[in-house]
Amino acid sequence: MTATPPLAPEDVRKVACIGAGVIGGGWVAHFLARGYDVTAWDPADDAEEKLRRLVSAAWPALEQMGLAEGASQDRLTVTPTLAEAVADADFVQESAPEKLELKRSLLAELTDATRDGVIIASSTSGYPMSDMHSDGADNGRLVVGHPFNPPYLIPLVEVVGGEKTDRAAVEWASRFYDVAGKSVITMDRELPGFIANRLQEALWREALHMVANGEASVQDIDDSITEGPGLRWAFMGPLLTFALAGGEGGMGHMLDHFGPSLKSPWTRLEAPELTRELRDAMVEGCEAEAGERTYADLVAERDQGVINVLRATGRLGGAE
Amino acid sequence: MTATPPLAPEDVRKVACIGAGVIGGGWVAHFLARGYDVTAWDPADDAEEKLRRLVSAAWPALEQMGLAEGASQDRLTVTPTLAEAVADADFVQESAPEKLELKRSLLAELTDATRDGVIIASSTSGYPMSDMHSDGADNGRLVVGHPFNPPYLIPLVEVVGGEKTDRAAVEWASRFYDVAGKSVITMDRELPGFIANRLQEALWREALHMVANGEASVQDIDDSITEGPGLRWAFMGPLLTFALAGGEGGMGHMLDHFGPSLKSPWTRLEAPELTRELRDAMVEGCEAEAGERTYADLVAERDQGVINVLRATGRLGGAE
Repeated sequence: MTATPPLAPEDVRKVACIGAGVIGGGWVAHFLARGYDVTAWDPADDAEEKLRRLVSAAWPALEQMGLAEGASQDRLTVTPTLAEAVADADFVQESAPEKLELKRSLLAELTDATRDGVIIASSTSGYPMSDMHSDGADNGRLVVGHPFNPPYLIPLVEVVGGEKTDRAAVEWASRFYDVAGKSVITMDRELPGFIANRLQEALWREALHMVANGEASVQDIDDSITEGPGLRWAFMGPLLTFALAGGEGGMGHMLDHFGPSLKSPWTRLEAPELTRELRDAMVEGCEAEAGERTYADLVAERDQGVINVLRATGRLGGAE
Repeated sequence: MTATPPLAPEDVRKVACIGAGVIGGGWVAHFLARGYDVTAWDPADDAEEKLRRLVSAAWPALEQMGLAEGASQDRLTVTPTLAEAVADADFVQESAPEKLELKRSLLAELTDATRDGVIIASSTSGYPMSDMHSDGADNGRLVVGHPFNPPYLIPLVEVVGGEKTDRAAVEWASRFYDVAGKSVITMDRELPGFIANRLQEALWREALHMVANGEASVQDIDDSITEGPGLRWAFMGPLLTFALAGGEGGMGHMLDHFGPSLKSPWTRLEAPELTRELRDAMVEGCEAEAGERTYADLVAERDQGVINVLRATGRLGGAE
């Protein structure tokens, strides 16, 4: 069966959230704030009470960020069964605990309980979609839609399908999240941990090694990011930031000049061979990302961005 | 000879900057903005012209950040020789090109050309201080003072001594940078790449692997950080952020619950063994960092921080 969603992404009105813990509840808050009708189901006894408390706690932040017209906490319905939650849903976000067998059977159950063609996204933080397919399920409309915590504040969602997912389902989900106010990265290939988690996991493991070896304290590690590169990463990614280290010559100059430092023991992660192909891919990628912006434009953007972030986080004018 | 600086860190008035490229020039701009008299020397023919242009370009940003009383671009003197630059200096910042033999001989020359006891810091981005000691030098007063680019905007400076560095010199330099408006991490042990560079190098290498394997584009990688974890890292470090993922149970719950994911292939960097000692060190470090702040305090701080950063970087209210 191919995935032919009943509605266009722009016409979605009813979203079902299955699993209402920290992540599922965060999704509920996000969709309510964007003006959707939301149904939620969670097997825990006190799930409804906890969920309404989470949404209510998040609401002042969501008001600050700007609610969609008609957005209301009253548009949340918590149902006693999974079937009731998803029966009329135009889209389903699954945020069950991170257990593969549980996810697999739950997703299969969801393809049965939803209308034909309804797209179902899993919040899994690392399982490839292909591992969550199963024989009985309508696999074509199952995708990963991986958010960051809390989903109502952090824009990123990573969308990727599995071997049996229809390409159209991946495209529909990406478009839907975009309409629903998220920043979407659509991946062409499955990769354990997706993209952002791989990057932060590398950093996390390096940090664990440092603490394990008595090389740095938790406080030092956190300070080294918030007082250093983290200030830039809030608005300019690490690769474009590195390109600026190459001056007018950009990423090309940076790699040609500092390439040898890839052999330095500056992390426990072995670097790839800096082939001509990799060098060129990095250069072209940075040029594409910079677009019309010149080196001077990017430097000015970085500098003003750092000042804005320092000011926004209370670090200008005061001694620490 | 032990390092007995002629002045207390609070009494420093004259700073010499040796090497006036992007980093050295950035230091010049920083020290001028903090109200110091600055002398600079660089062997390049057009060094003075480039340096004054860099300082002048940085000045509007420095005005936004708030100048110290009496701060002026007129308090910069570019000297024709290294000896003249450092003869009266109360502190020296060396920012020569990243070549070990050059750094070693330059630092030795600087211990000769300065007054007895004057502390000399190297901006090296990765050489251990011990590798930059040399037989003829007064090694006791040589330290690493590693900044992030641009040094006049990014607060972080990592301070560490080498085998022959006096402990007092490390303490003096840390205190001086603090007085001069930097955020200081003082390291007890030498570690190639120090702290922040190791963390960002792990992330950089993971990103290179992904591009080399066609797993993600440059744009995807950068977006995954700026739209995701990078928003939090501008004001709350990765470790305290992870602790929040453990809910009320904090880092302990997080490690006990998600520890097994260290075995997942989520990065090419092998994780350390999660021993009881490492677990406890992480938990205690996070508790020390959180101090009096409760879980609810930290969540509120994170949420408000993300909103402030989104607003400061122009991402609230507008579609991207």
